[in-house]
Amino acid sequence: MAGDVITIAHGGGGTRMQDLLREIIFPLLGGDTLNTAEDAACLELPPGKLAFTTDSFVVKPIFFSGGDIGKLAVCGTVNDLSMVGARPLYLTLGLILEEGLRLEDLERVLRSIAEWSTVAGVRVVAGDTKVVERGMADGLYVNTAGVGVIPDGRSISISGAVVGDALIVNGYVGDHGVAVLKDRDGFGFQLDVGSDCAPLNSLVEAMLGVGTVHSLRDPTRGGLAAALKEMADASGRAMELVEKDIPVRGEVRAVCEMLGLDAMLVANEGKLLAAVPESDSTAILQAMKSHPLGADSSVIGRVTEGRKGRVSVLTPLGSARLLRMPSGEQLPRIC
Amino acid sequence: MAGDVITIAHGGGGTRMQDLLREIIFPLLGGDTLNTAEDAACLELPPGKLAFTTDSFVVKPIFFSGGDIGKLAVCGTVNDLSMVGARPLYLTLGLILEEGLRLEDLERVLRSIAEWSTVAGVRVVAGDTKVVERGMADGLYVNTAGVGVIPDGRSISISGAVVGDALIVNGYVGDHGVAVLKDRDGFGFQLDVGSDCAPLNSLVEAMLGVGTVHSLRDPTRGGLAAALKEMADASGRAMELVEKDIPVRGEVRAVCEMLGLDAMLVANEGKLLAAVPESDSTAILQAMKSHPLGADSSVIGRVTEGRKGRVSVLTPLGSARLLRMPSGEQLPRIC
Repeated sequence: MAGDVITIAHGGGGTRMQDLLREIIFPLLGGDTLNTAEDAACLELPPGKLAFTTDSFVVKPIFFSGGDIGKLAVCGTVNDLSMVGARPLYLTLGLILEEGLRLEDLERVLRSIAEWSTVAGVRVVAGDTKVVERGMADGLYVNTAGVGVIPDGRSISISGAVVGDALIVNGYVGDHGVAVLKDRDGFGFQLDVGSDCAPLNSLVEAMLGVGTVHSLRDPTRGGLAAALKEMADASGRAMELVEKDIPVRGEVRAVCEMLGLDAMLVANEGKLLAAVPESDSTAILQAMKSHPLGADSSVIGRVTEGRKGRVSVLTPLGSARLLRMPSGEQLPRIC
Repeated sequence: MAGDVITIAHGGGGTRMQDLLREIIFPLLGGDTLNTAEDAACLELPPGKLAFTTDSFVVKPIFFSGGDIGKLAVCGTVNDLSMVGARPLYLTLGLILEEGLRLEDLERVLRSIAEWSTVAGVRVVAGDTKVVERGMADGLYVNTAGVGVIPDGRSISISGAVVGDALIVNGYVGDHGVAVLKDRDGFGFQLDVGSDCAPLNSLVEAMLGVGTVHSLRDPTRGGLAAALKEMADASGRAMELVEKDIPVRGEVRAVCEMLGLDAMLVANEGKLLAAVPESDSTAILQAMKSHPLGADSSVIGRVTEGRKGRVSVLTPLGSARLLRMPSGEQLPRIC
C-alpha cells in the first residue's frame, strides 16, 4: 500500500478506504462474512437467549507487556459476554484511527485481534473504520461489540449472589494495571509483571461443567473492589473477605505500596469474581485450578447477611475494615 | 451532578462513573435492560437470521442543521441493519468522552439518541463509557452496534442486483454533507439545507410490503457514487444512470459548484439506493412516494449487461460519462 501511515483519505469511503480494507484489514481478520462488504453481517444462531454487549478501548500505550489494545478489545467483550453465562460467538470491530498512525502498528493490532479471536473461538463479522486528524485519537481507539448465546437453563446475574455463597477469584489481582503503567513513558522501574489479559469463556464453561454459578463479574476498571461492591449492591447482600486469601503478587504489592496505589482498585483483564453455592465451591475451585487461567484461584470470602452493599475485609491483624468504592480510577486510560 | 464538565474520573469505573450513569445516562436512555448493570444485555429474539453491525461516529461539529452525533449514531446503525432486510431491534452505545466536554452537550446528545431510538423502534440495551484527556477526542466519539432479525424469506444483498433491475433513490442526495459543512467554523454561506439523517427501517418495510427488493445500500461516506460502484462491483453487473433523474437540490448543486464538490460524492444519512425488479418498480416507487422519507423518490437508472462494475451516466447533453469511485472523502469527519 502506498505510504506507510494512515491518512485522512483512508477514512473517506472511497478507493483509499477500500485499499485499506482489501489489502490490510480483510486479509488479517479474514472470514467470508466480513469480506462480503454487506452493511450488516447475517448470521445463524444456536438456540438460547441472546447476550449483547460493547466496550471501547483507549488504553495508553497501545502495546504493553502481556497485551495490546487489540487483545484487550477481544478479551474485554468476550469476558463481558461470559459474565452472563453466554457463549461468545461474534464480534464487530469499530476502529477510530489517527492520521499518521503507522500501518505496521495497525497491522500488529489487527494480527492480535485475529489471534485472540481464534483463541476465544469468536469471529469478527462486521466493522467500521474512521480516521480523525493528527492528535485527535492518540494512535487509535477500538470498539468491539459482541453477541453470544446463553444456553437454556443458565441464570447468572450480577444480582444473583445469595447468603452463604463462596466468593472466588481466579488468580492474582492488579497485574494488568501495573503492567500498563510500567510501559508508560517516564516509569522508572524494572518489573517482571505482564497483563493478565485473557479470554475467560473457556474457564467459565469449565466452572459451569461441575456446578452452579450464581454471579460473575470481571474486575476491570475499579478493580476487584468495584466488582465486589457492584455485586453486593446488586444482590442486596453483604460480603466478608479475608485479606490474606486475596492473591496479589509480591511485585505488584511492592509497586502499589511505592506509588500509593491499592491493588484491590487496580484493573484486571483476565480475572473473574464468582459467587457460587457453598455446596459446589470445592468442585468449582478444583475445576478452576485445573484450568490454565485458574491455577491460582482462591476462595476470598463469603456472601453474608448484613447491610446491603457492605463489604468488609478481615485484615491479617484480625481487625475488619470496610471496602469503599473508588471514586475514579487511580490509573486513567488503563483499558 | 457536581461540576458541569466531564472529568477523567468519570471514566474510572468508580463512584464518579456510577454517578454519571445513574444521574445522566440511565435516566435519559432509560430501559430496564440498561439499568440492570449486567456485563451484557440478555435478550429474547423473534425467529429469523441475526443481522449484526457497527459504526463509529466522529462528525465535526457534533451538532449541525438537521441532526447531531447522537441522531447519526442511531440512524447509521439502524440503516445498516435495514440494508440487509433486517428489522432493527437493539443497540449498544460506546461513548468516548473528552475531558472538559460540557455535561449539557452530553445530555443533549443522549436525549437525541433516546428520541431517535424511539422513532426507529429500537432500544439501547448496553453501553460503555470511556474518558480521554483534553484534546484527545474532539468533544466525543460515539460507537453504536446493532442487532436485528431478518424475517424468513428475505434475501437482500449488496451482490443481489440483476440485469433489468430499476435503480431507485428515495430523494435528494448530498444534503447531509453540505449541511455539516455549512455548520463548520469558517463557512461563509447562508444556506437553508439540513441533514437528511433519518432511520430508514420503516421505508424499507413499506417497500418490501409491495414488492421484491434485490439490493440495498445507504450512500453515506463516498456518496451515491460509492454506493453505485459497490453495488455494481459486488453484483458483477453494469449500471446506466440518467443524470437528470438523480435528485439534487438547487442549493446543494450551487454550493457544490462553488466549492468544487460533486454532489454524487457527498455523504447522505437518510438515503438508500435500491435495485428492484422492473416488474415491481412501479409499485415500490409508489409505496416510497407515499412514505414521508420517500416523497422525492426517483428511478435513476437500470442494471445492465456490460463490464462488471461499470457505471455510466447519461448527461443532459446526450453524452455518457463513466462514474468513478472517489479516492477519499471530499469532506472529512462527515459522520
